[in-house]
Amino acid sequence: MATGQLTAFELREEDLPDLARGCAVLGTGGGGSVGTGLLAARRAIRECGPVPVRPLGAFADEETVAPLSGIGAPTVGHEMIASEHEALALQAAVEELLGRKIAAVMSSEIGGSNGVAPVAWAARMGVPLVDADGMGRAFPEVQMVSLYVAGVPYNYIVMSDVVGNVSVLRPLDGLWAERQARALAVASGSHSLMADYIITAAQARGAVIEGSVSHALSIGRAMRLSTDPVEALQQELGAHKLIEGKIVDIERRTGGGFVRGSVIVDGVGGHRGELLRIEVQNENLIALRDGVVLASVPDLITVVDTATGVAISTETLRYGQRATVLAWPCDPLWRTPRGLEVAGPRAFGYDIDYRPIEELRSATV
Amino acid sequence: MATGQLTAFELREEDLPDLARGCAVLGTGGGGSVGTGLLAARRAIRECGPVPVRPLGAFADEETVAPLSGIGAPTVGHEMIASEHEALALQAAVEELLGRKIAAVMSSEIGGSNGVAPVAWAARMGVPLVDADGMGRAFPEVQMVSLYVAGVPYNYIVMSDVVGNVSVLRPLDGLWAERQARALAVASGSHSLMADYIITAAQARGAVIEGSVSHALSIGRAMRLSTDPVEALQQELGAHKLIEGKIVDIERRTGGGFVRGSVIVDGVGGHRGELLRIEVQNENLIALRDGVVLASVPDLITVVDTATGVAISTETLRYGQRATVLAWPCDPLWRTPRGLEVAGPRAFGYDIDYRPIEELRSATV
Repeated sequence: MATGQLTAFELREEDLPDLARGCAVLGTGGGGSVGTGLLAARRAIRECGPVPVRPLGAFADEETVAPLSGIGAPTVGHEMIASEHEALALQAAVEELLGRKIAAVMSSEIGGSNGVAPVAWAARMGVPLVDADGMGRAFPEVQMVSLYVAGVPYNYIVMSDVVGNVSVLRPLDGLWAERQARALAVASGSHSLMADYIITAAQARGAVIEGSVSHALSIGRAMRLSTDPVEALQQELGAHKLIEGKIVDIERRTGGGFVRGSVIVDGVGGHRGELLRIEVQNENLIALRDGVVLASVPDLITVVDTATGVAISTETLRYGQRATVLAWPCDPLWRTPRGLEVAGPRAFGYDIDYRPIEELRSATV
Repeated sequence: MATGQLTAFELREEDLPDLARGCAVLGTGGGGSVGTGLLAARRAIRECGPVPVRPLGAFADEETVAPLSGIGAPTVGHEMIASEHEALALQAAVEELLGRKIAAVMSSEIGGSNGVAPVAWAARMGVPLVDADGMGRAFPEVQMVSLYVAGVPYNYIVMSDVVGNVSVLRPLDGLWAERQARALAVASGSHSLMADYIITAAQARGAVIEGSVSHALSIGRAMRLSTDPVEALQQELGAHKLIEGKIVDIERRTGGGFVRGSVIVDGVGGHRGELLRIEVQNENLIALRDGVVLASVPDLITVVDTATGVAISTETLRYGQRATVLAWPCDPLWRTPRGLEVAGPRAFGYDIDYRPIEELRSATV
């Protein structure tokens, strides 16, 4: 995103469906299905008023930014409505811990419900939302954030659950952050609210992905205004169509705070029998045809409804859905050696080298 | 323990074997085998000097007491030497959190290694040890402490692991304390150092078991000075002998941060074939013969070596050991309705009413 063009704006209730549609596309199947985040954001805006969205540049260096997300298995978050008190309990804990006010909320991951729910958290806390996020998409693990890629040392993870438990972790590094936060989320039923780092605006500069909220809104708007939403998406994202077909097999299991599995899409028309397999850990990680990788993390792979372009999240995939699979390039930070170390195929246990989607397409098409 | 008689004293290296022997007996099989705690305490006293032990009455109301213990599966603690930095990291975290110094360390559970290791933690932190504990024995779960029985609301659990991770939990209640602390301990390999509550001396009064350190020392001393250590133990504790025999079967598994299982002791001489079965969750919970309960939590059941009287911890039980099983009354606080709710047989999933060991003995003998 070109950060020079970002301007402040206000998120009103009527903007939320565009935002949700865009976040769902950026979710690559994960980040939680946007339905629950949308409900929470709508209700919070009705009760607390519209939420100001400001570029990172609008915040003074020393102001405190809380990057927030839900952590857990999307299959659980899909069915479990969060408490409205989680955000306030987290805010109180952070402000007591640091002895200063939270100046803004940022989405840790713009993808899925985690791009929409921060609107609710910001509204309840009475603070603005930063037009930025820590992924430019969704990723399953705590350390898979741009701040960690940028080498910002872990200071705090603050967690708040639906029952009222609040915890402050000081993990040694990103891998311990994931291990400890996941263990606590699982102890709370596989869903918690989490501040993944507490940073100053100065620490955020250059270490987050700017313009993410605007980007999600413009994706959602492009889909709404087009008569061919899938085509509109391809243009808006610069996305490649990997297959258009029907979901013929899903394997999905929830455990250890994740949902894992795979989905198989069969082609339509002349492409019947061309099976595309997607491997999933909360998010769509890798798309393969006949054992050949067509796209992989950190590039984005999203399954959308062929008729409406609406993204289908991991936990709402069903046999028989007419689906199109799109893939497009990730933010350049994920293609750096450090970015690939944190969230490339090997970070998920796949023993393959990452190749950018553009390169894979020109090789296979 | 009669608290009026308690006086301040100093724990020197030469006192440690008595303390360890006594703590092992009070461990009812758990609390961690005393070997590792003894090593740590010996080394800490050599490096930092003797540890002052003071009765609770010697501390001013507002002074901060940190009740400490190791949390995890004794099978892991038995093999894993803790870091000497864990206590200092925990101390720093607590003092930063509260903005005041820790005035004293208290053992959360006097049983097993958790009665001995606090000597090392106090020595390293440079603070005295309170002559008291939170159980008067060992129990497997975080909430099974006198402070919780006394209704002191949970404020903090602070954890510190061997790698350097430090965490502060604010659990809603004792059951969440157990669930969250256990999850974090398991994430750290099933062993961590934990402050279970952070209290003032005023909060501790009437809510802890006083004289525990002196009690453990006098048990250890009585064993050392007697030619019949088992007999000496029975007198010192007012303990009943449930069986004298040989260990003929052990079933033991480690998972979820606990070791669970059972052990069977066969009688000797004219008592051969009289099988005594003990059910274990870190600690010895229930002793049965032919389905009849001979003793149960919260009363204490300890397996000792028939020749030496030395207590055999859960993780060191072995086929063929010559063992005597002793049982004796718990501190009266555990026999209150609230005490039995927290740590009676039903708290461990056994659908039986608690009957005091004295009553059971007079019924069966």
